Amino acid sequence: DLPVALIAGPCQLESRAHALEVAAALKECAARLGIGLVYKTSFDKANRTSASAERGLGLAKSLPILAEIRESLGLPVLTDVHDAAQCAPVAEAVDVLQIPAFLCRQTDLLLAAAATGKAVNVKKGQFLAPWDMANVVAKITGAGNPNVLLTDRGTSFGYNTLVTDFRGLPIMARTGAPVIFDATHSVQQPGGQGTSSGGQREFVPVLSRAAVAVGVAGLFIETHPDPDHAPSDGPNMVALRDFEPMMRDLVALDRLSKAQRAAAS
Amino acid sequence: DLPVALIAGPCQLESRAHALEVAAALKECAARLGIGLVYKTSFDKANRTSASAERGLGLAKSLPILAEIRESLGLPVLTDVHDAAQCAPVAEAVDVLQIPAFLCRQTDLLLAAAATGKAVNVKKGQFLAPWDMANVVAKITGAGNPNVLLTDRGTSFGYNTLVTDFRGLPIMARTGAPVIFDATHSVQQPGGQGTSSGGQREFVPVLSRAAVAVGVAGLFIETHPDPDHAPSDGPNMVALRDFEPMMRDLVALDRLSKAQRAAAS
Amino acid sequence: DLPVALIAGPCQLESRAHALEVAAALKECAARLGIGLVYKTSFDKANRTSASAERGLGLAKSLPILAEIRESLGLPVLTDVHDAAQCAPVAEAVDVLQIPAFLCRQTDLLLAAAATGKAVNVKKGQFLAPWDMANVVAKITGAGNPNVLLTDRGTSFGYNTLVTDFRGLPIMARTGAPVIFDATHSVQQPGGQGTSSGGQREFVPVLSRAAVAVGVAGLFIETHPDPDHAPSDGPNMVALRDFEPMMRDLVALDRLSKAQRAAAS
Amino acid sequence: DLPVALIAGPCQLESRAHALEVAAALKECAARLGIGLVYKTSFDKANRTSASAERGLGLAKSLPILAEIRESLGLPVLTDVHDAAQCAPVAEAVDVLQIPAFLCRQTDLLLAAAATGKAVNVKKGQFLAPWDMANVVAKITGAGNPNVLLTDRGTSFGYNTLVTDFRGLPIMARTGAPVIFDATHSVQQPGGQGTSSGGQREFVPVLSRAAVAVGVAGLFIETHPDPDHAPSDGPNMVALRDFEPMMRDLVALDRLSKAQRAAAS
Repeated sequence: DLPVALIAGPCQLESRAHALEVAAALKECAARLGIGLVYKTSFDKANRTSASAERGLGLAKSLPILAEIRESLGLPVLTDVHDAAQCAPVAEAVDVLQIPAFLCRQTDLLLAAAATGKAVNVKKGQFLAPWDMANVVAKITGAGNPNVLLTDRGTSFGYNTLVTDFRGLPIMARTGAPVIFDATHSVQQPGGQGTSSGGQREFVPVLSRAAVAVGVAGLFIETHPDPDHAPSDGPNMVALRDFEPMMRDLVALDRLSKAQRAAAS
Repeated sequence: DLPVALIAGPCQLESRAHALEVAAALKECAARLGIGLVYKTSFDKANRTSASAERGLGLAKSLPILAEIRESLGLPVLTDVHDAAQCAPVAEAVDVLQIPAFLCRQTDLLLAAAATGKAVNVKKGQFLAPWDMANVVAKITGAGNPNVLLTDRGTSFGYNTLVTDFRGLPIMARTGAPVIFDATHSVQQPGGQGTSSGGQREFVPVLSRAAVAVGVAGLFIETHPDPDHAPSDGPNMVALRDFEPMMRDLVALDRLSKAQRAAAS
Repeated sequence: DLPVALIAGPCQLESRAHALEVAAALKECAARLGIGLVYKTSFDKANRTSASAERGLGLAKSLPILAEIRESLGLPVLTDVHDAAQCAPVAEAVDVLQIPAFLCRQTDLLLAAAATGKAVNVKKGQFLAPWDMANVVAKITGAGNPNVLLTDRGTSFGYNTLVTDFRGLPIMARTGAPVIFDATHSVQQPGGQGTSSGGQREFVPVLSRAAVAVGVAGLFIETHPDPDHAPSDGPNMVALRDFEPMMRDLVALDRLSKAQRAAAS
Repeated sequence: DLPVALIAGPCQLESRAHALEVAAALKECAARLGIGLVYKTSFDKANRTSASAERGLGLAKSLPILAEIRESLGLPVLTDVHDAAQCAPVAEAVDVLQIPAFLCRQTDLLLAAAATGKAVNVKKGQFLAPWDMANVVAKITGAGNPNVLLTDRGTSFGYNTLVTDFRGLPIMARTGAPVIFDATHSVQQPGGQGTSSGGQREFVPVLSRAAVAVGVAGLFIETHPDPDHAPSDGPNMVALRDFEPMMRDLVALDRLSKAQRAAAS
């Protein structure tokens, strides 16, 4: 079992300078921690709560920046795609295509992502059970692409609230896909502020600790130099200055957890 | 208050002959009941549980059939769209564009549907609270299209189960949009049969009765001559032969319900 | 099918004068509506959110008042019991023993209530599925008492929220027990105000309309001359002056609903 | 921060010999692990799904056995109480009175337990939010007994299913009460087998790992020499032979987790 990998970055691609600054900081952090890093950022927030919310730089302006991060920093890059036509051009600039949770059952999008040959990270829909994801994996592997990752980002629980069912991590792992825990969106309160989503940043380390103890291939955690002024997901992003101490503990917990599970099997 | 309108038809557009047969039967039924009818059918089931499930005829073969139903039978037609590029061509063949529940937060799709000028029926996401739909309505009306309808098709409740919260109907009506109750998908058991969704057809009349008593502008009910052999949503579609007696009772309940609410206001 | 019966009264027995005043008003109301009435009130609120909340007059002071209402007004009376030892003395003063939702699985309480020979109204636990109530009914009928009623008062849905699943009414009716819909507690927001429960009085008529359209033997609705100053359940009790107009509509809906279901069977 | 304590034993007190055998085995196990142990067993299963299920030895026969375990093995003992009158006699034989989840809002029971001066362990109702437990703690401390523990045993999630929200552990800890995680009942499937509850024993270690990583004062885990033939909670009890290896890993994870949290604060 490899050490926990990290998928991290700011929610939105705000500017070239901002993206490069955060990517460089995360790269140094991951090196100090001895773990793998995939840089995550979004070129388009395609499903904002409100139409007046900031959507991001867009595809055309973003792909060169993503390509630059890959080349200049040597980091693998992940970004999300929202329709089938985006998959091929995005695949030229990144290493992992991510399917948003709301879209995880859209067959055409899954097949287009699969066809790129890149790794595909599918977020479990908030409306799906963990065992339902076996059908999603089969859509991609059945199209000839074995590189699927599954990410848990919480399950609908009443209104404007998500809950993480940690039984879901080993259940999804039965598909053979590496399982990632998305701590940032698991503590989101969807629509909880009327025209935007709220969040509970203080529970990011809490749920991340649970995830590595249960056993995951990776953690997905968004971070930002100034989350309270970020254009999206501010309430649930971790401040960059708090990121490394949190990760240091998580890496140590993960090491013990994986050693125990290796000994038991 | 107008009498309850009906959005009905088979889940999938299976063939021209099948579509015309069901449309003609429903047209006669609606005429006998004295209610409005919008014919509903889908040219593509874009988010099937499993990739091996039947998806339908596709856009190119379906639009001429939808146009023929409109012209030869004089029925308004509704179908669902799955990405922004479909909106304009589909709008030429139908009267109402429907946004699937999983896609109800996809801003580009909403704006493209709004731009057609056609009526847009948005299904409430299973992962959203009824009050969250005010932001969805604003995306469409803010784009200059005031013709929005909202449809309730249930809310996530544990795994593989939906529940209908009937408080949601008057809450969504506060937006000013006509509110439709989708009885067919509210009794779906998503993913409940492993590689397909289950359903509880026997509760279609039960929940429809509740909806008209609470007050709705319309009912959305899928029907089929032989639901047990339908390619999708069979377990929750009503057999065509049972449709008219069920609707007769619902229309009478609706008439009393609307008279009472008119007198009270 | 008999017309919908009414179980009504103020949440708490506040005083002899208050109880008699409300009982007399409800008796006249039920007579005008032509429906049966069971007077409901509680001598002890045994599970308040907070220990500092008002609990009521207590058993010893309340039983003579309940007996007086029965005799002087000729009304059947219902009250709730909280432990096995209360059942026998309470049964001497009332016609129906009610088992609170939290206690619906406590075998000793159910058996003691059954042993009185009085009718037993069991509220479905917020934590139970409707089909789970078959086992509860069997505990009582298996003890030789066939007079069981089941009442739905909502099901846990996320935190501090209940939802009514109207499929549950016909499911519970399969037990053979008359099914009651408790509109007052179904719109409660348990613990929703920190040290007390909130409520949404405006949805009492909404959900009651759904219930009679689906089909119930009775409605359970708490009412108070001045709910905003009531010691418990104020936010979800209906004002006495609004009670009769609401009930008049519900009785008419019930009459049509039962005629339709009688014709269909 | 003390090492994780263990509350363990078989669900039911089946016989004197059975109780002593399991208690002795657990005592040796805890000694080898270097952790505290409280022996748990129930003299009465007062809320079985079905009236025909085995309830246990009863109060009179059980108290001498509990007292014998305390004296002969020197183990503190915990058992659950179901009505106020049981509290005083049970308190003479045990060290911790436990309030079952369904009864956690019954004021008289809480006050009677508080009045014994013994420690009181309250299970969070499946129908309550974690923050709702502050009112429950206040009922006991307000009666002059500061020795309260809170135990999480899952929250209602749809029908016949519980989910553990691990945010609830630190939320309940804000009350100042030690927080216990009950892995056995958190994996129960209430009513899930028609006339009995199901369970998912394989998730006991999974959720226990999450709990110690998040941080708890103790774990509550039922165990049995032959769980598949136990009279209650068999599907979710851990076999005695699997208990020590599981606990050994949990103790190591707890040690690291507490060291990290001590360093961070």
